Amino acid sequence: MHSLLAALVATLVGAKLLGALAQRVGQPSVLGELVAGIILGGSVLGLLDPNAPAIHALAEIGVLVLLFEIGLHTDLRSLASVGGSAATVAVVGVALPFALGWYVGRALGMPPIPTLVAAASLTATSVGISARVLGELGVLERPEGRVVLGAAVLDDIIGLVILSVVSSMVAGAALSGWGITRTIGVALGFVVLAVVLGGRIAPPVFRFVARVEMEGVLGPVALAFALFLAWLAAEAGSATIIGAFAAGLVLHATPQRADIERAVTNLGHFVVPIFFASVGAAVDLRALASRESLLLGALLVAVGVLGKVAAGYAPFGFRGRKLLIGVAMVPRGEVGLIFAQMGLASGAIDGAVFGAIMIMVLVTTFVTPPALAAVTRARRVTPRDVPGEGGIDDLVAGARRTPVEQPRVD
Amino acid sequence: MHSLLAALVATLVGAKLLGALAQRVGQPSVLGELVAGIILGGSVLGLLDPNAPAIHALAEIGVLVLLFEIGLHTDLRSLASVGGSAATVAVVGVALPFALGWYVGRALGMPPIPTLVAAASLTATSVGISARVLGELGVLERPEGRVVLGAAVLDDIIGLVILSVVSSMVAGAALSGWGITRTIGVALGFVVLAVVLGGRIAPPVFRFVARVEMEGVLGPVALAFALFLAWLAAEAGSATIIGAFAAGLVLHATPQRADIERAVTNLGHFVVPIFFASVGAAVDLRALASRESLLLGALLVAVGVLGKVAAGYAPFGFRGRKLLIGVAMVPRGEVGLIFAQMGLASGAIDGAVFGAIMIMVLVTTFVTPPALAAVTRARRVTPRDVPGEGGIDDLVAGARRTPVEQPRVD
Repeated sequence: MHSLLAALVATLVGAKLLGALAQRVGQPSVLGELVAGIILGGSVLGLLDPNAPAIHALAEIGVLVLLFEIGLHTDLRSLASVGGSAATVAVVGVALPFALGWYVGRALGMPPIPTLVAAASLTATSVGISARVLGELGVLERPEGRVVLGAAVLDDIIGLVILSVVSSMVAGAALSGWGITRTIGVALGFVVLAVVLGGRIAPPVFRFVARVEMEGVLGPVALAFALFLAWLAAEAGSATIIGAFAAGLVLHATPQRADIERAVTNLGHFVVPIFFASVGAAVDLRALASRESLLLGALLVAVGVLGKVAAGYAPFGFRGRKLLIGVAMVPRGEVGLIFAQMGLASGAIDGAVFGAIMIMVLVTTFVTPPALAAVTRARRVTPRDVPGEGGIDDLVAGARRTPVEQPRVD
Repeated sequence: MHSLLAALVATLVGAKLLGALAQRVGQPSVLGELVAGIILGGSVLGLLDPNAPAIHALAEIGVLVLLFEIGLHTDLRSLASVGGSAATVAVVGVALPFALGWYVGRALGMPPIPTLVAAASLTATSVGISARVLGELGVLERPEGRVVLGAAVLDDIIGLVILSVVSSMVAGAALSGWGITRTIGVALGFVVLAVVLGGRIAPPVFRFVARVEMEGVLGPVALAFALFLAWLAAEAGSATIIGAFAAGLVLHATPQRADIERAVTNLGHFVVPIFFASVGAAVDLRALASRESLLLGALLVAVGVLGKVAAGYAPFGFRGRKLLIGVAMVPRGEVGLIFAQMGLASGAIDGAVFGAIMIMVLVTTFVTPPALAAVTRARRVTPRDVPGEGGIDDLVAGARRTPVEQPRVD
């Protein structure tokens, strides 16, 4: 208990401090939380041991709360409006980086399983990061922004399905076509069943819960629902985060969503940084500085950027700024980190490959905000297309002055 | 992880459901949470094991958050206004039940250490429970209400100091006068030092933190401050909850209190029920139903009620309803449960004494709301003393229609 207190104090303060610092310099706070974890972990200070049982449990709760939050934010219906283009960007943006990553890994002589984990970690764009950057640029409501958000949500779902497949393979399932098909079927079937059945069961249940009108009931019961679906997903042979995400999708459609979101987001402020800091703490700086890590990391960054930018050009019918879409799809975050952590914990990948994935996540996230700013600035050469009081730069500056309104929770 | 998910789902749903049910029938929700724990624990369903590492850690975080919350609510300055009467009620209300409890235990032939734990568990009135009941009766702002609140806060502090002494004795310290004096000195000195030093350090620190203006920073940093003081208290040889409580006292005085309180209360909705349910889950129903438990429990209830009601009559100078004060001081809650849990975990008391303390906490809490209603109703026989539009019953009815406004968080 004593060492847990010290670890929690260091983690909360470090993650919040560096997270705020990251935002100050125009980066998403998750970067700061990762760096805080690296500093607190065994490589430097040794204050945060991600394998200590209580820290491990809190980090797992953190990632489930995170996926629950992402699900709560996901409006499946509004995705339909940009459906075609978003689906094209998502599918190409998953397939291309995966294929390129697989090719790179095998070309470097890596065995199939670690190559699989590394390639899979390239698939999912970070919804959270791209939404925040687009919001700050003021293009969230434009067609490009909606396509990016839709595609990022879809490739999250595809990424989670791939995670189910990869983790069952890592657990020893044969690389057979039937096994892969079955795992995909279970993961997809679970989400579809959860959304369909949950969509019927959840509204009356939460109408009843909301009628209790006692302070502090709705949020914890909603969390219990997410943990229940997480447990159920694991029972069904899929991943717990699939269940937490599905729970969010289901509760997104209930009238109690805003209240649930507020309570869960507040809880997330406490536990999600513990997950990201734990992932950072698992980084072995010596392995990360190895020739192997740096080479693989650099190649993963290259194919990761290339694959997503190319995916931006995939929807032929879409009339809009395709480079903007592609660049906005570049940052990898939560799901990539989950792949890396799962791979390391299960022994599927070693510290060097883990380090390479961390390099990929850090660099793709780092480069996106300035790259997006450069892309929008480049547009200035063409004549103004925004009628009214100013060009894109003014929009950007305006957006920076008044960031997207978010409900204050704490 | 898998069994942790099942335990958390059952605990959150059970505690919230029975907590809401308890409130429905006019009882504080903590009673429902305890009963949920008893049902989920090893005696009945076996779903919640309070000794599983992750559950234990979450419950410990829960009790620290609870004491932090209580500290945040405690306004040391406003206590001064009812100072004399409240201090008299507090001191008599600690000393009398403690002495009577000690006498009962020794008369039953119990050894000194378990008798000490049982007697100490009688000392502290539950601030939370008495504040809620008084609020519902509409007498929170009357002199009687302020004396009760002041005394309840003071006997919490005294109770925590006694806890430090008892736990260091349980840990093997000799029952010497010097040892007791030193432990009291450390606990009191820690609170005083924390409040004085913290009162200078915290305001500039939290002014800086509040200036970060990033969502979700203030609450977690405040929690880190509480966990840091908890760690420091343990380092100084006192109890962690003393540190968390002191942190709340310190932050009560900062301008950021409202925001901190909101975030911490929301977190408490998730983790505090895990503590109470864990305490309930540690109850062994067979031991509780034993002749020994029932006899000791009944005697503890008797001296617990007697001691606090008598304490209500202690402030001779106070002109007001002394029976109302005494009855309002009867319910024992958090601190009594902490004594019981600490005693059981350290092996100082066995399941039978633990069961007796649980009976005492449950019964004193159960009887208070109807007893207070009866006391206020009995008053109706005497001629009206409240000038204006109605008697006490109207006040009570009005208070029930419009309960004390509380900021909604979730």
